This record gives sequence, C-alpha cells and structure tokens, in this order.
Amino acid sequence: MPPEPLSGHAGDAPLFNRLCLIGVGLIGSSIARAARERGDIARTVVAHTRRPETLAKVRALGFADVVEEDPARAVEGADAVILCVPVGAYAGVMAQIAPHLAPGCILSDVGSTKGSVIRDLLPQLPPGVRLVPAHPMAGTEHSGPEAGFATLFEGRYCILTPVPNGDPAAVEKITALWRRCGSMVERMDAETHDKVVAIVSHLPHLIAFTICGTADDLAEETREAVLKFAASGFRDFTRIASSDVDMWRDIFLNNRDALLEMLARFTEDSHALARAVRYGQAEFIEDRIRRGRRIRRGLIERKQA
Amino acid sequence: MPPEPLSGHAGDAPLFNRLCLIGVGLIGSSIARAARERGDIARTVVAHTRRPETLAKVRALGFADVVEEDPARAVEGADAVILCVPVGAYAGVMAQIAPHLAPGCILSDVGSTKGSVIRDLLPQLPPGVRLVPAHPMAGTEHSGPEAGFATLFEGRYCILTPVPNGDPAAVEKITALWRRCGSMVERMDAETHDKVVAIVSHLPHLIAFTICGTADDLAEETREAVLKFAASGFRDFTRIASSDVDMWRDIFLNNRDALLEMLARFTEDSHALARAVRYGQAEFIEDRIRRGRRIRRGLIERKQA
Ligand SMILES: NC(=O)c1ccc[n+]([C@@H]2O[C@H](COP(=O)([O-])OP(=O)(O)OC[C@H]3O[C@@H](n4cnc5c(N)ncnc54)[C@H](OP(=O)(O)O)[C@@H]3O)[C@@H](O)[C@H]2O)c1
Ligand SMILES: NC(=O)c1ccc[n+]([C@@H]2O[C@H](COP(=O)([O-])OP(=O)(O)OC[C@H]3O[C@@H](n4cnc5c(N)ncnc54)[C@H](OP(=O)(O)O)[C@@H]3O)[C@@H](O)[C@H]2O)c1
Repeated sequence: MPPEPLSGHAGDAPLFNRLCLIGVGLIGSSIARAARERGDIARTVVAHTRRPETLAKVRALGFADVVEEDPARAVEGADAVILCVPVGAYAGVMAQIAPHLAPGCILSDVGSTKGSVIRDLLPQLPPGVRLVPAHPMAGTEHSGPEAGFATLFEGRYCILTPVPNGDPAAVEKITALWRRCGSMVERMDAETHDKVVAIVSHLPHLIAFTICGTADDLAEETREAVLKFAASGFRDFTRIASSDVDMWRDIFLNNRDALLEMLARFTEDSHALARAVRYGQAEFIEDRIRRGRRIRRGLIERKQA
Repeated sequence: MPPEPLSGHAGDAPLFNRLCLIGVGLIGSSIARAARERGDIARTVVAHTRRPETLAKVRALGFADVVEEDPARAVEGADAVILCVPVGAYAGVMAQIAPHLAPGCILSDVGSTKGSVIRDLLPQLPPGVRLVPAHPMAGTEHSGPEAGFATLFEGRYCILTPVPNGDPAAVEKITALWRRCGSMVERMDAETHDKVVAIVSHLPHLIAFTICGTADDLAEETREAVLKFAASGFRDFTRIASSDVDMWRDIFLNNRDALLEMLARFTEDSHALARAVRYGQAEFIEDRIRRGRRIRRGLIERKQA
C-alpha cells in the first residue's frame, strides 16, 4: 500500500483518541505536527518533555493540544503512547510511566536502536499494554521542538520490529499511523534492524566523528589548511558529524555489538586496501573502487541517492 | 586579489599565445572552455588526448582550436603546457613530450598529488622549461570531455606548489591563469599539500570505497536491506565512491606515505572510540562527538560547507 498523501482526511476516523508523545524534539514534534495537519491520526495530542525551557517552547509552538510536565499524568487515559527520547533514557522514563499506562494502550517508540529498546521496555510492560517498537528512517542534523515539521516522514521508510507474541492489531494501528505520516512501512526482527542501521548509519557516524578528531589533532599549521581546503569528501563527513551529542552517545552505547562488529569488518577491509596501496597492487585497488561504484549504482536504481 | 569574473575581457591581452592541454577530460576540458569563453587566457588552445574515441569526442565538442593526436606535435611551439591526465601517467607522458618542449615554455599540471608529480617531472625537465605544479580543488563525480564546464573552478581554491629555485615569473603567470578561471590561488610546499589532501580528500575516499565493499560482503539478506534503507550517512559516503577508477588508483598509489599515515592515525582514533563504546565510557564518546561539531562549525564559518 503506498503512503497516503498528507492533507486533511476529514472522512477518516482518527486512529487514536488520545495520543501521548513522551519527548517532543525533532521526531516527536514532527509526529505532533503531522497529526495536527491531518486530523485523522488522533483526536487529542498530549506532549511531555523534561526540561522547563523545552516545555515553554512546546507551549509557544502550539502543536500539541495538551502540554504536560509530569510524564505519569501525560500518559493517563492515552490509548497510544510514543517514546521520542534518546534510547538511553528509555528504562528511566518507562519506570515513571509504566504504572500509569491504561490497559489496552499501545506503547510505541521512534528509537534508532531496537534490541536495546525491547530489552529496556519489555520487562517493565504492564499486562494488557501492547508494545510495537518502530524506527522512522528520517531526520535532519537539527534537534529540538523547533526543528520538527509535518512532512519529515514523507516518502521515507519506517521500520517496525514487532515483538514475539505481540498483538497484530496493535502493529496494524502503528503501521497505519506511519502511513498517514507519509512513510513506507517495513517489518523485520530487531537483530536484523540493528545490523542494517549499524552499517548504513551508525558506523558512518562513528567514522565521521572520528575523522574530525583526527584532523583536529594534526599540527596547528596543517589543521588551518585542512579547514580551508576541506574538499567535498571531508565536507560530507562533517555534515554527518554535526548531529546531537546525547542521541548519538545513546545510539553507540545501545547498538554496541552490531556497531563493533561492523567496525571490525570495516577495519579489516580498510587494512586490506592500505596493504594494497603499500605494495602497489593496482588491480586490488581498482577492484575496491569498482565495487563502491556498483553499490552506488544500486542506490541510484532504488532512487534512494 | 579576488578572482576575476568569468566574462570576456577583450581589453586584457591573453596570458599565453599557445596553450596546450595534455588530457582533456573533466579538468582539461574545463580549462579549455574557460579559455574559450574569456578570451584572455590564450590565443590558441591545443588539446591532446590519448584514445581515438576521446579524440573524436573532443573534435565534436569543439572547445579547442587545434586537436592533436600526437602529444609531441601537440606541445610544439606552445608557451604553456598543462598536464591533465591521471598522475600515474605523468612519467610516461613526460618522456614523450620533453624533447619537444620549447625553451622558455611553462609546464604546469592539475594533478591531485604533488610530491609524486615533482618526482616524475623534474628529472626529465629540459633546460629552460619552467615547472609550476598546481592542483585545482574542484571536481565532480563525472569524468571525460563531456563532463567539463567553464565555471568549474569558480570560487574554488587552486593550490600551487612551486619548486625550489623555480621561476617566479612563471608562478605569477600560472597564478593569473587560475584567477582568470575564477579560483582563489594559494601556495604551499608539496609535502604539506599532500598531507592536507590526504586527510580532507584521499582518506575519505579510501573509507568510502571500503565501506561500500564491507556492506557488499554482508550476507545476501542484510545487503538487500542495506541498499533499501541506506540512510543519509551511507548515502554521502557512496556519493564519494562513484568517482573515476584510474584517477583514484593513481592518487592512492602516488600519495602513499601521507595516505597511510592518515589512515593509521584515523584507525587509532576509531579504535579508541570503539573501546569507549565497548566499556560504556559515555564522557569519552560525548567528547568525540563534540569535537566533530566544533570542526563542522569551523567549516561553516569559512563558508566551505
Ligand atoms: N534525529 C534523527 O535523525 C532521528 C531519526 C530517527 C530516530 N531518532 C530517534 O528519535 C529519538 C528522539 O530524537 P530527536 O532527534 O527527536 O531528539 P531531540 O530533538 O534532541 O529531542 C529529544 C527529546 O527527548 C527529551 N529527552 C532528552 N533526554 C532525555 C532524558 N534523559 N530523559 C527524558 N527525556 C529526555 C528531550 O526533552 P528536553 O529537551 O525537555 O530535555 C526532547 O523532548 C531518539 O531515540 C533517536 O534515536 C532520531
Ligand atoms: N576529477 C576531479 O575531481 C579532479 C580534481 C582535481 C584534480 N584532478 C586531477 O586532474 C587530472 C585529470 O582528471 P580528470 O577528472 O580530468 O580525468 P578524466 O576526465 O578521466 O580525463 C583524463 C584525461 O587523461 C587522459 N588519460 C587517461 N589515462 C591516460 C594515460 N595513461 N596516458 C595518457 N593519457 C591518459 C584521458 O585520455 P583518453 O580519454 O583519451 O584515454 C583524458 O584525456 C588527474 O590528475 C586528477 O588527479 C581531478
């Protein structure tokens, strides 16, 4: 089923009566904005955020019907709750809200790692609350409630990693939510998800953060020149590296095994290429460059590039 | 001195009488096009390229006044010759043209490595011929004579790496050529140049080529998902990785020492970050992410991002 266009669907009944967003930075506020623009996602949107400054911003921006500073009160009476905080905060947030989740309520999230999310949420899940982990593959370099916009998820994938013996009806409702946000929804197990994002997103970020530091450590004179002549290669890396500190710290710590595995594979491969450079093995080098071009073509054919 | 605008300067005398380009792919053909559009770079532009197919294309595109298949004849009577071939081809090309370079002629180039260029050209330099190595920091992912355009160098840096005891007047003329192409001209020694481009361009490309291969080696099922969900991180990497095979093979082989040094530094740094991930050292990770953001800000302030 293709995603639905983002425009008022007065005819369709809202999916949820009371949708509560725990965390309304870039991702949470974008969900709230999409819900407000469409009208067919939730009758009422409740927003909770931790810090008084952010609460004040959320009130001023006005994308939520109710702004609630107490997470326990925020989730009360909600038939859907979506966690939109850094993945390292899940266990603590869950301890606060779990006793207040209504029976039958759907608990979902948008976290960038999924094994850790199931690990941190499942043990605290009250009976009758239905867990549906999700990860929208959309984002920008910016964060906070000002950074969100209603069309952020349009045309992007959203991966659901349903839990074993979960409720199929709850998975369907979260699928419908993301389709109404404009996304293409895919399902896979949490382990596969974590490997895929480790190679397509987490390792590239680790590399980008690292190479910036490597450049920064060069002697003063060279560093000035590095900044001055940063060619497109380095520029692309540093665009990546401008992302949020807390979010990326939590992602690295919570996708540790897959990330370290992908880094180990990458390091082996980069050493093989370095060895070919050292010993002047032109054919090996050409082969590696050609493989890169092949993958690139694959991306273009899929229109993801 | 700011770069001159790219428009006819009928008033200014051409810098050269007969400018010969050895190699007219992306870079060489862009110089030819800029010379033709401005009129104040050379009275006559001579183009040489190696393969009959490319020669036919160059004739059809019509950006050169003379198209010459024999490199020795191409350089005859030229007061400036610019090598625009992959850096691995320099020694062989120089052997063919050196006996035919006119005394007083300026020999320059556009190669992406500079230590190797001086190594390969200087021993063969006939007396009276003046060498001025140069590297325009501009390019696209595309190659060949069709890919060039007159404005490619506008607003970009061009680095000159003058040789010891070289002719200052020749350096001034090549500086003027690049300014008329719209570039900002900087000078540094070849060794510093090679280190700077190793970190800002060559290592990022080595990493990009490598990570594509790493992804390609993953089990069939995960690879499909990798291609499907390639998030922005991986997309930026693969954009880099779509570049020309011969050019990059030659760059890696001809900037070996600086490239291996930068890779070794980067690998140490990535292992330090990996170790922090393994042992859950949040502060170390945060520090690395923050450093990346600082460099990024540096780039933005310099308007290079
Ligand atoms: N950004 C992306 O590209 C992207 C893409 C896909 C998924 N995600 C995932 O989406 C989630 C949110 O990311 P985001 O980009 O929306 O982040 P963000 O813009 O920085 O917003 C984070 C939100 O979480 C709250 N928060 C932060 N730390 C907290 C803590 N320790 N305890 C409780 N609340 C906390 C913040 O509240 P205060 O401001 O009030 O402190 C804010 O409301 C993360 O799990 C991330 O992995 C992000
Ligand atoms: N592309 C960039 O981003 C960029 C940026 C700055 C500097 N450079 C440097 O500019 C130079 C040219 O790059 P380019 O992008 O213009 O390459 P290109 O578009 O692939 O053109 C290469 C030219 O060199 C000729 N050539 C290739 N191999 C040769 C050989 N073994 N012997 C003699 N001639 C040969 C080709 O002739 P045939 O087609 O007739 O074989 C063609 O005329 C390289 O040294 C590169 O390092 C490139």
